[in-house]
Amino acid sequence: MLEVCPMTEVPHELAQARRSIDNLDAALIHLLAERFKITQRVGYLKAALDLPPADPNREAMQVSRLRELAEQAQLDPEFAEKVLTLIITEVVRHHEQIRDESNDPG
Amino acid sequence: MLEVCPMTEVPHELAQARRSIDNLDAALIHLLAERFKITQRVGYLKAALDLPPADPNREAMQVSRLRELAEQAQLDPEFAEKVLTLIITEVVRHHEQIRDESNDPG
Repeated sequence: MLEVCPMTEVPHELAQARRSIDNLDAALIHLLAERFKITQRVGYLKAALDLPPADPNREAMQVSRLRELAEQAQLDPEFAEKVLTLIITEVVRHHEQIRDESNDPG
Repeated sequence: MLEVCPMTEVPHELAQARRSIDNLDAALIHLLAERFKITQRVGYLKAALDLPPADPNREAMQVSRLRELAEQAQLDPEFAEKVLTLIITEVVRHHEQIRDESNDPG
């Protein structure tokens, strides 16, 4: 009976959509966790090689590539760039921390 | 010969890490594109049901759940919350646009 009542049908659809969003968000967190595991390794490599924490050329290429991928996937490229900028800012902060710890003679 | 030279070995490792980061970023873009496809549907549902674009209770639950998932995956929960807040802000903006278009009698 619930299936044919319009007032319960649509909240059911909303609940379904939210379960999908929750699944995608869990995947997103695990993807980000894996990405930061890799950038942590990059941070130690850069510190060992005395390379700067930030790499503007690499970042410009990443932004350009992801904006293109976003357009292909019909995601707003401005928004894609905002997410990438947030991630890169965090990564550079981690790289700076690793560099500073590596330089600490204590 | 290149394999045993320390100066080329480490940049090779950096290049490898960057290829993995690029793969994860492509997955991230596609995940976000899929998430926004679902929230667009939610936006139309909310407009049809005259539900508000933002839902602070739902958002608080999402933040709390994702912070916990982040901790389990060893991702900084503060950073996870920042990413989710950026996404939710964009989603609410989309929902408001859909609501305003639905209310436009023109």
